Amino acid sequence: MSQATGLLKPALNAIAEDIDHSFDLLLPLPGDPRNRLVEAMRYATMGGGKRIRPLLVTATAAMFGVSREAAVRVGTAIEAIHVYSLIHDDLPCMDNDGTRHGKPTVHVAFDDAAAVLAGDALHDFAFELLSDPATSGDPFVRIELIRTLAMASGMNGMCGGQMMDIVAETESFDLPTVTRLQQLKTGALLAASVEMGAILGHVPIEGRTHLRGYARDIGLAFQIADDLLDLEGDEETAGKALRKDEAQGKQTFLSLLGPDRAREQARRLVEQAVDLLQSYGPEADLLRELARFIVERNH
Amino acid sequence: MSQATGLLKPALNAIAEDIDHSFDLLLPLPGDPRNRLVEAMRYATMGGGKRIRPLLVTATAAMFGVSREAAVRVGTAIEAIHVYSLIHDDLPCMDNDGTRHGKPTVHVAFDDAAAVLAGDALHDFAFELLSDPATSGDPFVRIELIRTLAMASGMNGMCGGQMMDIVAETESFDLPTVTRLQQLKTGALLAASVEMGAILGHVPIEGRTHLRGYARDIGLAFQIADDLLDLEGDEETAGKALRKDEAQGKQTFLSLLGPDRAREQARRLVEQAVDLLQSYGPEADLLRELARFIVERNH
Repeated sequence: MSQATGLLKPALNAIAEDIDHSFDLLLPLPGDPRNRLVEAMRYATMGGGKRIRPLLVTATAAMFGVSREAAVRVGTAIEAIHVYSLIHDDLPCMDNDGTRHGKPTVHVAFDDAAAVLAGDALHDFAFELLSDPATSGDPFVRIELIRTLAMASGMNGMCGGQMMDIVAETESFDLPTVTRLQQLKTGALLAASVEMGAILGHVPIEGRTHLRGYARDIGLAFQIADDLLDLEGDEETAGKALRKDEAQGKQTFLSLLGPDRAREQARRLVEQAVDLLQSYGPEADLLRELARFIVERNH
Repeated sequence: MSQATGLLKPALNAIAEDIDHSFDLLLPLPGDPRNRLVEAMRYATMGGGKRIRPLLVTATAAMFGVSREAAVRVGTAIEAIHVYSLIHDDLPCMDNDGTRHGKPTVHVAFDDAAAVLAGDALHDFAFELLSDPATSGDPFVRIELIRTLAMASGMNGMCGGQMMDIVAETESFDLPTVTRLQQLKTGALLAASVEMGAILGHVPIEGRTHLRGYARDIGLAFQIADDLLDLEGDEETAGKALRKDEAQGKQTFLSLLGPDRAREQARRLVEQAVDLLQSYGPEADLLRELARFIVERNH
């Protein structure tokens, strides 16, 4: 295994810039009464967020010689889904969060109706972008990208996980159920990011097994790290309210395992994820660094 | 022009049954904590609604020899988008409606969070369904279906129209702006229904001009009829609260034209729509009847 260092920071900076630029370009103000909708979409999508999902797409796509432009478009679509889910999740009737990425959430900066609609419109925007021939000239690739994203986002993916998360407030879940919850709520979209990078690279489904395993493992590690940050992190660095799970008495990896075993489990998952990349050379170094960053980050 | 009679009623009954059956089959309860999400999706999609959009798909698709099974699947996807938009539109932060199709709205029967998530999951469900090879074996057809639906639903379609509708509560719109609002808010999805029926039938884009014109005209006629029903209709027959536009002082076709000119305009649009079908024979009779039904319906 190569000892990659220093690839991640410039990659995170570059993807943040590219994704901001992409949303700026693809979401022009229409200059009519829809302006308020597009303003809310721009407010939510630009200038914040770690852009982990787009980075997973571009890092994976680059391993298979895909143009950065195509990978950034696909990353923009996945980020649109991620951002729409945050907008809806922050609503007063959901998590009722007032701050996100260090600024007021969409329903605070605009209003609840604008937040519902901006989320819905970003949801469509993702599929509009993926169905565009400019994303890939190959309709088989486009359809597979769309199918992968739709399945990762809906009732058998992210939305299903969010409902489980709501049920977790009143029912006591065991470790396998919490694992399933997290695999759906955040793992599915992270896994889709890696998979869609590989789809862009024309990697056949049987060639994606290890990459999917990598994504599954870092997805769980990511969630455990999030739980630990929620317990031990700093609200200002996080840019959002913390320690809500504990206040709600919700079962998490942390409450079920305790901080020491949780931290150990996250480390083990990251090593396992890195091991799954052993058939790749230095072209997978960025994915390796990213896996380690997930448990070492402070926000 | 042929004098079709009696095709519509059995067609409406058949599509209502087929769409209910389709949602029943495609939305099985998962038997885990996601049950509540899928229960809300089933509650919202089954046993209500006129199913105008699926009927537009099946009626158009049948003109070009498409199997009913494929047309019903596409109709189910469009209806999922329509239903998700109703669920979100009925939320307290949007129109705050407590009754829909004569029963409590989703946020009343479940809660606001379940309504947001059920809408989001139905939104994905539509694209999942369209991307499935079972919908069409031809990836070019699937990708064109997806692109047409995404563009009709998002910021340049339904969501954009909904934001204009919110702005209309506080700004005074003129007739061209109200027309644009309605073309986006309801017209885009009705037009997409006809267009997607033609796409299933492999009708090339230049062969769809008259069908799109038909859909555009009946879309506006549909909205004028809705405005008239809102003014003159019976709440019990409608299954929802009426006379809200007037109470909000919102500009509509009706407020701008008055009831007599509005009714005349709706009739003219329907005749224009029927004229656009003149190159078709009896195979277009159902679309002709449907156009007339739109201005004559009482709910």
